Amino acid sequence: MFSTMQDVPLTVARILTHGATVHGRSTVTTWDGTGPVVRTYAEVGARAAQLACALRDELGVTGDDRVATLMWNNAEHLEAYLAVPSMGAVLHTLNLRLPGHQLSFIVNHAADRVIIVNGTVLPLLAAVLPQLNPTLKHIVVTGPGDRSVLDGFAGTVHDYEELIADRPTEYPWATDIDERQAAALCYTSGTTGDPKGVLYSHRSVYLHCLQVNTGDNFALTPRDLALPVVPMFHVNAWGLPHAAFMSGADLLMPDRFLQPKPMAEMISALQPTVSAAVPTIWSGLLDELDGGDYDTSSLRMVVIGGSACPPSLMKGFEERHGIRVVHAWGMTETSPLGSFAQPPGGLTPEEEWPYRVTQGVFPASVEARLIGPAGERMPHDGVAAGELEVRGPWIAGAYYGGAGNDPERPDDKFAEDGWLRTGDVGTITPDGYLTLTDRAKDVIKSGGEWISSVDLENHLMAHPEVAEAAVVAVPDEKWGERPLATVVLRPGATAGLPELRAFLAGRVASWQLPERWSIVESVPKTSVGKFDKKVIRASYAADELTVTLLGKE
Amino acid sequence: MFSTMQDVPLTVARILTHGATVHGRSTVTTWDGTGPVVRTYAEVGARAAQLACALRDELGVTGDDRVATLMWNNAEHLEAYLAVPSMGAVLHTLNLRLPGHQLSFIVNHAADRVIIVNGTVLPLLAAVLPQLNPTLKHIVVTGPGDRSVLDGFAGTVHDYEELIADRPTEYPWATDIDERQAAALCYTSGTTGDPKGVLYSHRSVYLHCLQVNTGDNFALTPRDLALPVVPMFHVNAWGLPHAAFMSGADLLMPDRFLQPKPMAEMISALQPTVSAAVPTIWSGLLDELDGGDYDTSSLRMVVIGGSACPPSLMKGFEERHGIRVVHAWGMTETSPLGSFAQPPGGLTPEEEWPYRVTQGVFPASVEARLIGPAGERMPHDGVAAGELEVRGPWIAGAYYGGAGNDPERPDDKFAEDGWLRTGDVGTITPDGYLTLTDRAKDVIKSGGEWISSVDLENHLMAHPEVAEAAVVAVPDEKWGERPLATVVLRPGATAGLPELRAFLAGRVASWQLPERWSIVESVPKTSVGKFDKKVIRASYAADELTVTLLGKE
Repeated sequence: MFSTMQDVPLTVARILTHGATVHGRSTVTTWDGTGPVVRTYAEVGARAAQLACALRDELGVTGDDRVATLMWNNAEHLEAYLAVPSMGAVLHTLNLRLPGHQLSFIVNHAADRVIIVNGTVLPLLAAVLPQLNPTLKHIVVTGPGDRSVLDGFAGTVHDYEELIADRPTEYPWATDIDERQAAALCYTSGTTGDPKGVLYSHRSVYLHCLQVNTGDNFALTPRDLALPVVPMFHVNAWGLPHAAFMSGADLLMPDRFLQPKPMAEMISALQPTVSAAVPTIWSGLLDELDGGDYDTSSLRMVVIGGSACPPSLMKGFEERHGIRVVHAWGMTETSPLGSFAQPPGGLTPEEEWPYRVTQGVFPASVEARLIGPAGERMPHDGVAAGELEVRGPWIAGAYYGGAGNDPERPDDKFAEDGWLRTGDVGTITPDGYLTLTDRAKDVIKSGGEWISSVDLENHLMAHPEVAEAAVVAVPDEKWGERPLATVVLRPGATAGLPELRAFLAGRVASWQLPERWSIVESVPKTSVGKFDKKVIRASYAADELTVTLLGKE
Repeated sequence: MFSTMQDVPLTVARILTHGATVHGRSTVTTWDGTGPVVRTYAEVGARAAQLACALRDELGVTGDDRVATLMWNNAEHLEAYLAVPSMGAVLHTLNLRLPGHQLSFIVNHAADRVIIVNGTVLPLLAAVLPQLNPTLKHIVVTGPGDRSVLDGFAGTVHDYEELIADRPTEYPWATDIDERQAAALCYTSGTTGDPKGVLYSHRSVYLHCLQVNTGDNFALTPRDLALPVVPMFHVNAWGLPHAAFMSGADLLMPDRFLQPKPMAEMISALQPTVSAAVPTIWSGLLDELDGGDYDTSSLRMVVIGGSACPPSLMKGFEERHGIRVVHAWGMTETSPLGSFAQPPGGLTPEEEWPYRVTQGVFPASVEARLIGPAGERMPHDGVAAGELEVRGPWIAGAYYGGAGNDPERPDDKFAEDGWLRTGDVGTITPDGYLTLTDRAKDVIKSGGEWISSVDLENHLMAHPEVAEAAVVAVPDEKWGERPLATVVLRPGATAGLPELRAFLAGRVASWQLPERWSIVESVPKTSVGKFDKKVIRASYAADELTVTLLGKE
């Protein structure tokens, strides 16, 4: 029996019209390096309508055309965030930090018709122009910047302000479309293979937005000033721009001024209440705050995600600056939130700590399960490890197939029943707290059991004479895979490999002990400083490592 | 173009399984008059499964059978709230305070198969048993109470605890149904005509629940203890039971102990953080708190709705007890929230006040419009009045047609384009603040303009010699309708009707001035103390009033 409730879709257009009227006096402030540039949500709404009119009437955007952005966090980016999906088109956020060949691949794969670009990053776009397909018809430039670098572009170049000037400040927004229609597009920066596009729906954006605004998440209200340090090209800035517009929270946009000193000055001057960023950015900020004289008392919460946040960083903010840091987990395929490490009720601050250093709990809308080496469900007992799989209305079930193609569902990213395979391995407690330990590709699958490479590495690096240790899976005839331990010794170290093995034997189960050991000069690293296990595995396969066998049957 | 997000429905079953696991240590506490009875959400989840097993295996509940409750706010009611929709059936909450003929009408109209009833209210049910159709097969009684009053029942009587004992604590919950399926049913207590059933969907319950948990609404977290004083048979206790289970907030259930003294004792002893109730209950509580020695410091917010809350009551709680009162508006047809009177940001407490005494702003998911006397859209300028119409995914678009029937959509409650006509008249400011002044049926439609009867009454009652004044619409050949003012003078009053008219003339527009005046002994009242304008209009029509004409052309 169907209910008698109204059948009203969840749309980005509702977020836009609500924010621009009910929260019309709320503001978005863009930092220009020395001071604030302020615009009200009513003005943002009017300018979004002007942008939509221009896109439709002047640039010929229709249906689900892709309109891309290559922009920092600023008011114009917010206008595009709201206008493009609300007119029924698809907002495609381009990552400013991608290598050129990936940027051009993504623009061509999405068949973007328009790119809106900040003048300050024009050289990035100019560098890939020769590789772009003629599906790209228009480039719209905001703010100052040398337009002459676009001279080779076969399409049309527009100035953002000139383009939208004198156009109507109202638009017949797409409020009655199917909520499962595409609203936004973001590509993973996949380290292997081509980037994959995740196509968010109006429904997923809206539901994610409601979740972001719940009490134990960002809980935004009109009394908040939210500072998204996480870029708007990085999974929708974790939903903050849309969530702020929905809730009436003011927004503080740092544009390109993400260095510790300007950020500390901006926080001190404008007093944001909540923020969100990745650990590397906040780590630099902590140093700046420690060394300077800044007022950060306005910040009630800082959410850190993107990669695991060191407890020392969390404690540094909390103990020295009174800023509560909350850990979160997510990925492009999960919109991105994801789990949020808020503690249960009724605990002392000290008792809360073990919960807060985990990846947190999932909200009601996201189901999680752990899948073991043989594809079996692992218990949520806080001990058994498995690959994390998730399901929910804002979780991807496939990848964008590119213009005119069907969605792709590669076998290795989606389970047969549609759940997303996250590629992360960890444990879940009975009350839902997730702790991630490895990427699935770094786990050693040995005789139907999983051995955590990260766990072995941490134990090895606890030895006083070990500088670094990287453990990788290598093929083994009997067990399928076994761990290979590569170790960098400190200068003057006297310990031999048997001693290191004995050291490890006291700390992990005997069947997890590596038989293959290699002392190396250094561990190869990726461009962002992580162990490059692909290179180690390749060196082993090519017989380039000196390997000592210890304890192998 | 459709998105590539997973197609996962929003269901009550997700709220149940999430709360029972992730928030398994959270608790529901039922007050037994002297002390607390505590159950964890894990236990509630297990008992809900046992209840579902019993309903299916023993009582033959299948498909969308209606399972009714006639219960106070307590843990067993929470179990039914979660179990019944989560098994795919429909939870039908029966209002304990309805007159018997309405109660039997509703049970028969819904064709309830089962009624779960608190032992303490068995006499209410026994009194209507002879009027109930044989579609009612089972009565399940919780707690103590004389079961012999049910002896005349042709079906089966069960004891709740005996019924669920020894059954499996797991159930294959309906997590993959269409989210537009019916989940719950609540009848309006309509003062005219038969009660109408509003059939909530899984989608509407879930979305409403997310909204209740947002930062500017109840913002529940596991650190909260929520006290729903508003009954669970009164529009889902404003969503608090489901929202608490979703967020992990603890629940405090007052059962039948709603009198000021036990409530003040319970609040003092158990320290709830948020509550929700109608003004009459809180008015009594305020007197009790003023006169006693209670600790209410735990309450961060009390939400008052159901009817307009006198500012004196709001200020009394705030100034004398430090409890912030927030005004809300809603109705059975709106799930019920509705608008919430939180102020914009950046204001001083004194500046916030004019916003807080309104009915508040609607969330993004609820659109509002005002319809004038000729069916035209009225501007949202804070001045123009119109009938409030609303639209949204948790707003009713029709009424339940009864077992086996199509939904009803009477012309007078739903606009042609599906919006709900609330029957309330008021204004909306440009930034969305709603102020209600009249019920639509009490507004005087005069020559294409609306005259507020409440406005005229308030001005008249400001005259020192007027004890009470009620203004109603009466037919007028020229204008369609005109106001009739009925006035009760204070003892010893010397003012005549011409003086009262002159008094009014200085305060309202001349075209709003009544021509028809009548001095009466008293204003007829309804059972809840409101002016009974139906009776006044009938007296006028029957020529039973002495009417003086003043200033009529």
